[in-house]
Amino acid sequence: MTLDLTNHPHRRLNPLTGEWIQVSPHRARRPWQGKKESTSAAQKAEYASDCYLCPGNERAREAKNPEYDSTFVFTNDFSALKPDTPSEYRNAGDLLVAKGEKGICRVICFSPRHDLTLPEMETSQIRQVVDLWTREYRELGNRDYINYVQIFENKGEIMGCSNPHPHGQIWAQETIPDEPVKEWKRQAEYYKKHGQTLLTDYMDLELEQEERMVVENEHFVVVVPYWAFWPFETLVISRRPFSRFTDMTDEEQGGLADIIKQITVKYDNLFEVSFPYSAGFHPAPTDGEEHPEWHFHMHFYPPLLRSATIKKFRVGYEMLGNPQRDITPEASTKLLKELSPEHYKK
Amino acid sequence: MTLDLTNHPHRRLNPLTGEWIQVSPHRARRPWQGKKESTSAAQKAEYASDCYLCPGNERAREAKNPEYDSTFVFTNDFSALKPDTPSEYRNAGDLLVAKGEKGICRVICFSPRHDLTLPEMETSQIRQVVDLWTREYRELGNRDYINYVQIFENKGEIMGCSNPHPHGQIWAQETIPDEPVKEWKRQAEYYKKHGQTLLTDYMDLELEQEERMVVENEHFVVVVPYWAFWPFETLVISRRPFSRFTDMTDEEQGGLADIIKQITVKYDNLFEVSFPYSAGFHPAPTDGEEHPEWHFHMHFYPPLLRSATIKKFRVGYEMLGNPQRDITPEASTKLLKELSPEHYKK
Ligand SMILES: O=P(O)(O)O[C@H]1O[C@H](CO)[C@@H](O)[C@H](O)[C@H]1O
Ligand SMILES: O=P(O)(O)O[C@H]1O[C@H](CO)[C@@H](O)[C@H](O)[C@H]1O
Repeated sequence: MTLDLTNHPHRRLNPLTGEWIQVSPHRARRPWQGKKESTSAAQKAEYASDCYLCPGNERAREAKNPEYDSTFVFTNDFSALKPDTPSEYRNAGDLLVAKGEKGICRVICFSPRHDLTLPEMETSQIRQVVDLWTREYRELGNRDYINYVQIFENKGEIMGCSNPHPHGQIWAQETIPDEPVKEWKRQAEYYKKHGQTLLTDYMDLELEQEERMVVENEHFVVVVPYWAFWPFETLVISRRPFSRFTDMTDEEQGGLADIIKQITVKYDNLFEVSFPYSAGFHPAPTDGEEHPEWHFHMHFYPPLLRSATIKKFRVGYEMLGNPQRDITPEASTKLLKELSPEHYKK
Repeated sequence: MTLDLTNHPHRRLNPLTGEWIQVSPHRARRPWQGKKESTSAAQKAEYASDCYLCPGNERAREAKNPEYDSTFVFTNDFSALKPDTPSEYRNAGDLLVAKGEKGICRVICFSPRHDLTLPEMETSQIRQVVDLWTREYRELGNRDYINYVQIFENKGEIMGCSNPHPHGQIWAQETIPDEPVKEWKRQAEYYKKHGQTLLTDYMDLELEQEERMVVENEHFVVVVPYWAFWPFETLVISRRPFSRFTDMTDEEQGGLADIIKQITVKYDNLFEVSFPYSAGFHPAPTDGEEHPEWHFHMHFYPPLLRSATIKKFRVGYEMLGNPQRDITPEASTKLLKELSPEHYKK
């Protein structure tokens, strides 16, 4: 009997982190009697007087938003990281180990419009968000105590987003967090061995095999990675192997805006809802090193599995053993690929 | 300025996995306007005719449950792992790597009563569950293609549990999953260096410092670990450093039943709801090796944060950067410790 990846339980390696995923393709047929998420089809207004992110409104702690008309960035009123923390290190027997951590948290409003999300914005408006991410990456990364700038978006209530106004966050900090460290190690090993980036070679394989390719443009490709954990997880890879936001050419910045539009429209079209996800970038650390091994990319981690109301649970086995998925990455790609490139609301 | 762990943002190391947790104590004061979970206060019946786990009822695929009167175990009708999978290995350029995986999935009913959960069962009934876990660990672990036996429970709809009948699962498989592998490496390093188990020394520190001790008995202690990610995460450690279910003495098996009763009653009392969690054991691998470095323990990962309806989200920064928590492990311990040892329903 030979292994059939469309049917037999198997494990796949995530070469970016060195971790494994358990794939159980045959389980996709399992009936679901568990939890259903609620969806809100409520029509939102362009402006909400009680929204602390809308232009002109009051925020927490008596701060007031300006009458902004494109993007707007400010320091998080409830920052998880602060610049004035002592960087002291504590250690009892290598068992109780702690370290004070300096950092800065920002909030970025993508648009003054309360009722939009990235897929419903014009590509030119997304481009303004890309420009702001780039400015913030440069500005925060230039501070000598900031070694990593984590830019991300939590979209949808189900992803812990507490305000529907389109916005993302930045957590910039002293220590490079664990996920980028894992990717760094693996990318460095690969680069040393092969003389080019891991994601260059991986992208070539995907372009050749095609079955996990979702969308592409001149500067970026989007795949459901071979090792995806989330049912509709995708990876956005730059065609040219650069490392940083600040390495992008003007055309590449435009390409990034376009590819974000393309993939998020597909996502919204999948179940015809505003598709929840956490997404974010893994650019090179801002530690003053060159990082030729580091290949700029973006992850989309959407929780939904079978419909707008049935999500994938990262629970028991996933927490104690290994991440596990039912539907194969190839089957997910097929579903995404077939969807219209036009937003369903149009 | 010196580092104040009750107030300053800091990182803590998980010495069992080598991973870090970002702690932001001051964020506990942040208001919450986001998602609220629903709770079901609905009174359950002792028997439900439409429950596929109740005694005498039909399951999927025409299987029928016996009229069991204590515990009951069967092979999962929708197993994620199967014994007859070819163990073939595939590798394209170290980038597309997959391996067929053999395994067995079981479901364990804790009680014939549809309306009970572990904290509402008698300690003597929980003891029957401990005995069954031990038998299954031995029986599955004895098969030569099974190298790890992952025993766990997903409790509550919010944890992906699709049936409220009290039950747990076992996923037993060929490859040792990633989480136990991480713990194995760190435990082996520690044992080599110090000549005793990591958790022995850690437990001693906790017994000395007291501030993270929740409950204990003659054979087990329960702490909110110094590196806990989930707000009310706990770690159950055996006082004697043994490795396996099958190493437990009769008294230790009784002690395990008692400690599970104690901690789950505390959990239910915290918000006076049936407290959701994923929990499970990390015994030594069943790979035929000795494993003196491996210290038997159990993890409880409960999602709730501030109330029965507000959970902690493992999203953006947690997925792309590092796990992060607001309330400190010490503050969580204090809340748990003060609760009555009697179940609130009594
Ligand atoms: O209990 P079930 O239906 O097998 O499945 C549940 O537990 C599994 C193991 O943690 C998860 O992979 C599933 O997402 C969850 O719904
Ligand atoms: O957007 P907020 O309110 O800062 O917080 C949200 O994102 C954070 C970063 O991923 C998470 O730690 C929180 O659990 C989530 O609710």
